[in-house]
Amino acid sequence: MKNLFIATALFLCEFAFAQQALWGGQQIVSPEIHENNTVTFRFLAPKAVKVQLTGDFLPARASVDLKEGKDGLWEYTTPEPLAPELYSYAFIVDGLKSIDPNNIYLNRDVASLTNIFIIRGGRGDLYSVNKVAHGSLTRRWYDSPTLGLTRRITIYTPPGYEKSSQKYPVFYLLHGMGGDEEAWVTLGRTVQILDNLIAEGKAKPMIVVMTNGNAVQEAAPGESSLGLYKPSMQLPKTMEGSMETSFPDVVKFIDSNYRTLANKANRAIAGLSMGGFHALHISKQYPDWFDYVGLFSAAILPDEGVSSGIYDDIDGKLKIQFAKKPRLYWIGIGKTDFLYQPNVDFRKKLDDKGYPYTYYESEEGHIWKNWRIYLTEFVPVLFK
Amino acid sequence: MKNLFIATALFLCEFAFAQQALWGGQQIVSPEIHENNTVTFRFLAPKAVKVQLTGDFLPARASVDLKEGKDGLWEYTTPEPLAPELYSYAFIVDGLKSIDPNNIYLNRDVASLTNIFIIRGGRGDLYSVNKVAHGSLTRRWYDSPTLGLTRRITIYTPPGYEKSSQKYPVFYLLHGMGGDEEAWVTLGRTVQILDNLIAEGKAKPMIVVMTNGNAVQEAAPGESSLGLYKPSMQLPKTMEGSMETSFPDVVKFIDSNYRTLANKANRAIAGLSMGGFHALHISKQYPDWFDYVGLFSAAILPDEGVSSGIYDDIDGKLKIQFAKKPRLYWIGIGKTDFLYQPNVDFRKKLDDKGYPYTYYESEEGHIWKNWRIYLTEFVPVLFK
Repeated sequence: MKNLFIATALFLCEFAFAQQALWGGQQIVSPEIHENNTVTFRFLAPKAVKVQLTGDFLPARASVDLKEGKDGLWEYTTPEPLAPELYSYAFIVDGLKSIDPNNIYLNRDVASLTNIFIIRGGRGDLYSVNKVAHGSLTRRWYDSPTLGLTRRITIYTPPGYEKSSQKYPVFYLLHGMGGDEEAWVTLGRTVQILDNLIAEGKAKPMIVVMTNGNAVQEAAPGESSLGLYKPSMQLPKTMEGSMETSFPDVVKFIDSNYRTLANKANRAIAGLSMGGFHALHISKQYPDWFDYVGLFSAAILPDEGVSSGIYDDIDGKLKIQFAKKPRLYWIGIGKTDFLYQPNVDFRKKLDDKGYPYTYYESEEGHIWKNWRIYLTEFVPVLFK
Repeated sequence: MKNLFIATALFLCEFAFAQQALWGGQQIVSPEIHENNTVTFRFLAPKAVKVQLTGDFLPARASVDLKEGKDGLWEYTTPEPLAPELYSYAFIVDGLKSIDPNNIYLNRDVASLTNIFIIRGGRGDLYSVNKVAHGSLTRRWYDSPTLGLTRRITIYTPPGYEKSSQKYPVFYLLHGMGGDEEAWVTLGRTVQILDNLIAEGKAKPMIVVMTNGNAVQEAAPGESSLGLYKPSMQLPKTMEGSMETSFPDVVKFIDSNYRTLANKANRAIAGLSMGGFHALHISKQYPDWFDYVGLFSAAILPDEGVSSGIYDDIDGKLKIQFAKKPRLYWIGIGKTDFLYQPNVDFRKKLDDKGYPYTYYESEEGHIWKNWRIYLTEFVPVLFK
């Protein structure tokens, strides 16, 4: 019988692949990152009239035309090397967006998928998996009695957490509108950034807690009892107090399920856009909880139509918060962010009162590239 | 200043969405699952000559033509309702495979992405997230001194694990060629199946350990220090003894990091295809370790060219294994699987020796639909 097995083995193993993969892929390399960091993109479309490329490495997210070559293989090579960074792109084929079928690496932002690639070096290395000690990433569920929901939450624990008896500081990292408890892990590369900064000795080992800031959601799209629905921006905006009011449920869950240093000196909170708004209001609402606060392109846009105790007497609460001398109040924003002016105004308010803060101004606007940069700037100064 | 904030809030929030999502999506619903479980697929392609649909709900994975309607919107509705199941599909646009840009839910198999959807009811409910108690899923890294690598591993812990002091049985669940430590979670819906079976009282709470069975890999594509490379089937086949030889590293890691019932009566091992081959050989190599063994479409194909002690004296080792009376030796395969005959031969060997086993024969062949089914059949009989 053994002979029967052997006789058929090689042929069958090859066949197994075909059957298992269901549909074969194309034998095309795209994107191809050359030694000098120029990049070639390829798209097979023999019947297309026009194939274009759009990506966040192009000025103002313009599109460029690919050139049709042999057998309908369209191609474009960047004229200049790209700087180290994580980039997003998609093709536009006869006017319709298409992902690159030769690149399995995608990020989702709301209902939009785009391909990604990384140019190594500099921050590109921080966003990559390297041969360093790795933390663990857990998706689990916690009870929020305040919201009346059991909710999904994403938690990074640093290398060595499971085997030590040490207690760790905790960094609460909040997403923006359209995001969820997956956003900082996928678009934000939080695991890679933390692993790498800790390995380089630039960040203290810490627990990072990524919540879902949409008060009506159990979990990210596809991860809740709503099934595999098409996400949209139509969620009720959680800028009406419920995120801030329910946040103690999260802190309580973390402090009772992890070995935390459960005090102000060892808690940080930061968020992007809507999450920056949340970080602002949560930190002032609970002025004894967070010694480190980060506002990343914060949507400092309270809505007068909202009646929540959370947004009452902002000035009075800020006064209390700053009287308690948080060790770091960090504001980062890009020069072309549409939220630039509200952040200027907010900084003026802090300046007028003499409240100290650290300010980081980047190029460009309201984009994940900036939020990854802010994360790499913010994390190294925590808990020191 | 508050007025400035308020005046601009609504307009800016809308703008934020556009900027954050980088590229907008289409306003098309696809797939649309109707009340009677027929399904409509839609694809916008005004310039296409032919748009087809391929999917595992079509006979023998044929393709069907979509019909072009108004403004280049192509459409196809299944003539009959689909049975409850998780289905995969893709479009073929003028001969080229394209994912559905209106469906963000994708599974990767090697280098191939396909869209998925679920028809609820029956097994479709088992594969869905429901309002039940949820376990936790952790991606972490362990040392394999035998392979000389630090490697990624995926671990499911059942609801209540973190808050109990109870010890749990452990189920080691292995993937096939082309798979990795992500395969059973994504293609296999393991988390949903375990959560749901445990909630229904049909499965005992257990830890499920999903390893990477490719001995040369640190981790799944994109999750290792190799970067965002294009995966292929060109990995050296791990059917040369290294997986089996290094498996004690995994068991040791699990038993020293989790509250396990570290004995034969509380350990199960199963795998699909190459993983079934691994489960067969690991369970006979360590006959005191596993009381439950599952071979799912097992690649019972030892290669005569391979010299490893693992594959020596198979009959003698099976004799020892069965003398120790494992509580369950489970074999599942599909009627059209290309590995059907080797499994017939293997069962004949067991029959001839009088070794007891449970046999489950399904329709169809070497496909994930079957492996999910086998999982739902196997898990309820474990540790009882």
